[in-house]
Amino acid sequence: MISSKRILALMAIGSLLVSPAFGQKRARDYGFDFGVLHPGQWNAITDVQGVKVGHQTVIKGDSVRTGVTAILPHAGNIFQEKVPGAVHVGNGFGKLAGTTQVEELGNIETPIILTNTLSVAAGIEGGIDYTFSFPENDEVRSVNVVVGETNDGYLNDIRGRHVKPTDVVAAIQSAKTGMVKEGNVGAGTGTICFGFKGGIGTSSRKLPEELGGYTVGVLVQTNFGGVLQIDGMPFGKLYGQYAFKNQLESADGSCMIVVATDAPVLERNLKRMAKRAIMGLAKTGGIASNGSGDYVVAFSTAEGLRIPYDSDGKELLEQSMINNDYMSGLFLATIEATEEAIINSLFAAQDMTGHQGHQVKALPIEEVLKHMSKD
Amino acid sequence: MISSKRILALMAIGSLLVSPAFGQKRARDYGFDFGVLHPGQWNAITDVQGVKVGHQTVIKGDSVRTGVTAILPHAGNIFQEKVPGAVHVGNGFGKLAGTTQVEELGNIETPIILTNTLSVAAGIEGGIDYTFSFPENDEVRSVNVVVGETNDGYLNDIRGRHVKPTDVVAAIQSAKTGMVKEGNVGAGTGTICFGFKGGIGTSSRKLPEELGGYTVGVLVQTNFGGVLQIDGMPFGKLYGQYAFKNQLESADGSCMIVVATDAPVLERNLKRMAKRAIMGLAKTGGIASNGSGDYVVAFSTAEGLRIPYDSDGKELLEQSMINNDYMSGLFLATIEATEEAIINSLFAAQDMTGHQGHQVKALPIEEVLKHMSKD
Amino acid sequence: MISSKRILALMAIGSLLVSPAFGQKRARDYGFDFGVLHPGQWNAITDVQGVKVGHQTVIKGDSVRTGVTAILPHAGNIFQEKVPGAVHVGNGFGKLAGTTQVEELGNIETPIILTNTLSVAAGIEGGIDYTFSFPENDEVRSVNVVVGETNDGYLNDIRGRHVKPTDVVAAIQSAKTGMVKEGNVGAGTGTICFGFKGGIGTSSRKLPEELGGYTVGVLVQTNFGGVLQIDGMPFGKLYGQYAFKNQLESADGSCMIVVATDAPVLERNLKRMAKRAIMGLAKTGGIASNGSGDYVVAFSTAEGLRIPYDSDGKELLEQSMINNDYMSGLFLATIEATEEAIINSLFAAQDMTGHQGHQVKALPIEEVLKHMSKD
Amino acid sequence: MISSKRILALMAIGSLLVSPAFGQKRARDYGFDFGVLHPGQWNAITDVQGVKVGHQTVIKGDSVRTGVTAILPHAGNIFQEKVPGAVHVGNGFGKLAGTTQVEELGNIETPIILTNTLSVAAGIEGGIDYTFSFPENDEVRSVNVVVGETNDGYLNDIRGRHVKPTDVVAAIQSAKTGMVKEGNVGAGTGTICFGFKGGIGTSSRKLPEELGGYTVGVLVQTNFGGVLQIDGMPFGKLYGQYAFKNQLESADGSCMIVVATDAPVLERNLKRMAKRAIMGLAKTGGIASNGSGDYVVAFSTAEGLRIPYDSDGKELLEQSMINNDYMSGLFLATIEATEEAIINSLFAAQDMTGHQGHQVKALPIEEVLKHMSKD
Repeated sequence: MISSKRILALMAIGSLLVSPAFGQKRARDYGFDFGVLHPGQWNAITDVQGVKVGHQTVIKGDSVRTGVTAILPHAGNIFQEKVPGAVHVGNGFGKLAGTTQVEELGNIETPIILTNTLSVAAGIEGGIDYTFSFPENDEVRSVNVVVGETNDGYLNDIRGRHVKPTDVVAAIQSAKTGMVKEGNVGAGTGTICFGFKGGIGTSSRKLPEELGGYTVGVLVQTNFGGVLQIDGMPFGKLYGQYAFKNQLESADGSCMIVVATDAPVLERNLKRMAKRAIMGLAKTGGIASNGSGDYVVAFSTAEGLRIPYDSDGKELLEQSMINNDYMSGLFLATIEATEEAIINSLFAAQDMTGHQGHQVKALPIEEVLKHMSKD
Repeated sequence: MISSKRILALMAIGSLLVSPAFGQKRARDYGFDFGVLHPGQWNAITDVQGVKVGHQTVIKGDSVRTGVTAILPHAGNIFQEKVPGAVHVGNGFGKLAGTTQVEELGNIETPIILTNTLSVAAGIEGGIDYTFSFPENDEVRSVNVVVGETNDGYLNDIRGRHVKPTDVVAAIQSAKTGMVKEGNVGAGTGTICFGFKGGIGTSSRKLPEELGGYTVGVLVQTNFGGVLQIDGMPFGKLYGQYAFKNQLESADGSCMIVVATDAPVLERNLKRMAKRAIMGLAKTGGIASNGSGDYVVAFSTAEGLRIPYDSDGKELLEQSMINNDYMSGLFLATIEATEEAIINSLFAAQDMTGHQGHQVKALPIEEVLKHMSKD
Repeated sequence: MISSKRILALMAIGSLLVSPAFGQKRARDYGFDFGVLHPGQWNAITDVQGVKVGHQTVIKGDSVRTGVTAILPHAGNIFQEKVPGAVHVGNGFGKLAGTTQVEELGNIETPIILTNTLSVAAGIEGGIDYTFSFPENDEVRSVNVVVGETNDGYLNDIRGRHVKPTDVVAAIQSAKTGMVKEGNVGAGTGTICFGFKGGIGTSSRKLPEELGGYTVGVLVQTNFGGVLQIDGMPFGKLYGQYAFKNQLESADGSCMIVVATDAPVLERNLKRMAKRAIMGLAKTGGIASNGSGDYVVAFSTAEGLRIPYDSDGKELLEQSMINNDYMSGLFLATIEATEEAIINSLFAAQDMTGHQGHQVKALPIEEVLKHMSKD
Repeated sequence: MISSKRILALMAIGSLLVSPAFGQKRARDYGFDFGVLHPGQWNAITDVQGVKVGHQTVIKGDSVRTGVTAILPHAGNIFQEKVPGAVHVGNGFGKLAGTTQVEELGNIETPIILTNTLSVAAGIEGGIDYTFSFPENDEVRSVNVVVGETNDGYLNDIRGRHVKPTDVVAAIQSAKTGMVKEGNVGAGTGTICFGFKGGIGTSSRKLPEELGGYTVGVLVQTNFGGVLQIDGMPFGKLYGQYAFKNQLESADGSCMIVVATDAPVLERNLKRMAKRAIMGLAKTGGIASNGSGDYVVAFSTAEGLRIPYDSDGKELLEQSMINNDYMSGLFLATIEATEEAIINSLFAAQDMTGHQGHQVKALPIEEVLKHMSKD
């Protein structure tokens, strides 16, 4: 946490820059400095070499406030070159598609799709359509699409099922590396977090060379509750907005978390990393309430670990992977990047009015900064 | 196993009756007598009071050989009155939707839908449509549809995704109690089992009163391989048709198994029952090969265990459930009913020609009977 | 977090009392105020009605610094009246005994024993001895003792296996309600946490009546690393002592967490509560490093949920349990109590010299207070 | 299954040889021919190159009928050169030690010890003693001993805890390759299976070269019930001795199964193999009753997959492992070898009188052969 004096000092020396691409300052730009490791170039999941992110925002009239976010593990034909993957269920009140096959086979064969709760079927259809669009997949008769969701039904006419398979394909096809748009975008368009407007957030950590030099990137779709804590500061409590404040107020909602790494890590250790993402969520004050679908999908982009669809008579895979003893740094990186990604989603999100005139306010950043300086 | 003499004797006294409704003899009608417990009235999952089964068979032209089978735990609004449920993954190369929420909350809130691998999305959409069709569900914004599948892509143009949400709703709406159609019907229309035509099969066991008098019913969608064993007789081996006979021949495929009981059993013990269903599959010679999606969905229809959607301010559920010590009889019942349901699917299925002219022969029952008498 | 001014103010009005029984101030006595819920009377696991805690500290000569802590779910014959129980594995580099049976049957039938890594066998023997000491258990031939451990091998001659079954029985027999001794005591005698002296810690939360009025109590044996955070303040970072500071410095170690509640909660929901305890650990800066054995054992003392060993021909258990919808308050309580219990262990622990002359310093509380006032 | 004529014919040509080492015919010697794959040289777990088995039988006076069986994955220092390992829980009413660490780290670092239920602590102590006996382990402070058990309390004075750590070390040190003694030996000394005398059994399968040429070996400690089926023949039913025959008769008991392979398979696929072992158990008529502790421990001896204790600064492990697509043959081998190992335990076991004068008869082999010829 930083004091108000430090903020003023940083402002003075101009180091609190507005993120160039989107004209929006991120938490780190205000001086928040989560953890002890350092972010990568974009402080985004795209810092993991090859990972691409695409958004399709679906806003129509007064009531449709939803969308799709797609995360691509690599630029090729993912079905033909699967990546090691794992899923951890923080709290399973959710409809994540694809889990049991990822668990059984240890790999992921499609982009990871995030959308709203009632559009998982559209996500699956879109994922199949995309996979079938590759000529070399034209004999494929089984596709395990990974689709996560949170429920944006307060701001969005979710029962209308306005996300279509074409939106899913559009999100995938628009995916790119570099800066990632955060806040009210894609699958984060209509979400709510700690009572404020939530959305998409992202962050990354690059381990020092002595710990392997690997990168861990995290992307979140935030739609959950609890007692908001920003880099340790109990903002929810100070501001008087938190779960159960008015006894029976719900903290429900969900958080989808995607963890990418270039470290050569197979499914068991990816699952262990995925578990740590929930620890990052905990540090923001999330409680994984009964009604939450808090899921983590993790994958490795390490080229040596790709799993070919067609083993082509090759019985053995030669793989080079990290020894268990070297995992702890990746765990810490996952925790830190998740915490920061969640807070980033709050800093980027903006006021939203939607379905049935419901309104949700963005995090009052001024108030946040005031409380920082009070301590 | 029974000797040929016993078959002849049974035939003489007329006890090998043709099943009245469908003009087809079931395995038991030929004298096979699986296990030591006795079936219920219909020897079907519908022997569990209140359970209904509906099929929608989708056959079109030369290439479409697929469909939907729906199992309804009770006749009411399942979303409003959920049933305790559990899932066990025998082998997870499959796309079963709904697992993580069933696991987290311990309940099932929709009919259980079975269909083909690439129609899981249609299954979800149909399940949502059905749930939304109840006026009292009109504020519902989250539905966890349980959809299982096997891959009928050899006989069916699976990539065409010919199952529509309307087919799913039709299957649900046609559901009824009593006799259950088996073989090439609903989700079993295009499936293959041990190299023969597979399909839908069902069976049940009623425990003696001293063991509680409960009923266990099983329904299967058979689409898997191995070394076929019929009530102990190694038919696959004797007939010379089994996995790996020609070294690299695959045993892939899948089996969806649904287990119903009226015993008051919550999710933990339902999961234990579900695990036993795979033991029943093992007795038919199934091996749960790498490419199999062998899943078991189990639920209890016990009225005292219904979980209301709207807890209506009621914090406590009063439940009366079976002590662990009394579970073993239900385990045995599950094993026996699963074994018999799988064999029933083979006895009921008939030759089928489909996609790309592929042909699959039914189990040659004459040959089966010949091998029985040979021993 | 509180400012130095608030501390001074609290001191002035005398509200920073020394804990009466042990002459030691706890974190809360210095003004730290974790979360938004309130502790019970003792701010200890013993606030859950009927729970008793006993310690046997084993210190001998220069090298033996170990012990046993026992947690008793109720005052009766636990084997004859089992309690609903669950285990969650945060990170499984540990030797926790008894897990699979707790998972399968959903209950716990012995006191929960905590000790050092190489004394789990002594824990099991002691747990059996204790169980056999009840005349009514004299036909019992199977006992599932739950024994957790952390590795105190830096301060303790752990290879000497100095804990004996008699020490385990002594810990159990000395168990009592009321205040719980924290710090260098029992199983916490030789443990290390965040590089400071760790040990036993405890805390509790009582839900407001509107949320059910239930109590959640937590007891921890802290022996792990990471980046210490005290009620949000990044003390480890400020003080310059944290995992990976010197690149390859380990964060290994373990944390055993025991969660008790009087809420009527069965195994599935107890497991969900157990999962939240790791979220509390995360808030202290723990990272569940590769070498950690971070386990949570949770149980309910609700009398209506006791499971009799001898079902006495009674097939059904009548149980009244909390609806899923009402679990979130218990989740929050678990998170808060775990966070505070861990910090309490640090505040209570004192400098220790042990095996091979190794020394570990207690948390420098003065420094902690200084950093609080700096912000 | 074979006809009586075939038995007579085999006898005539002298192919039903007595097993040379122990003067006892095994099931296969009577013409039973389980499955479609072929056993290795010894039809034992020791067909997996490097695996050794040792027994310590503990029989004293009228009441002590117990022992220890140890399975060593390789001849070296297992702690320093761990093997990939996995555990599957068929039914978890048991006290298997070591599971969570095997699950977390994916490896096994000690011999696998089998003994009786109340001697698991002795097993752990013995396993630690053995590990500490290697000079190169003299800094080791944490050992995860894998100890399985079944309950021999009907024939054995189990409450006396007559197995000592020295017995465990003796079993390990006597371990050897080649023929494995079966029946009333080691951990099988006092066990009961399907109401007959159970014990230790073993079997193996060698895949044809086209499927990789790998060997799978299984060793079992049989102590469970159900409806005995011998190579498909429902002997329990025919003989009139089976679970629930007299309504409330228990089928309780347990089965420990150890699966070894030289195939290069890591923990995820080992766990899948372990799951198939329970399918083999199912084929013998086991039902995994409520009171059963049915566990499978699987490991790979592939040298390229050894995990060094001391990574010695080496962050990456280079591993060559089987592609998922090639696992099915190993699954079938596991099922077949488990089925045969269980039946072997019954054929080898002999009448036993023990604790409190209890008597258990061996499988009446004459009766078995009679029923075979009847069909």
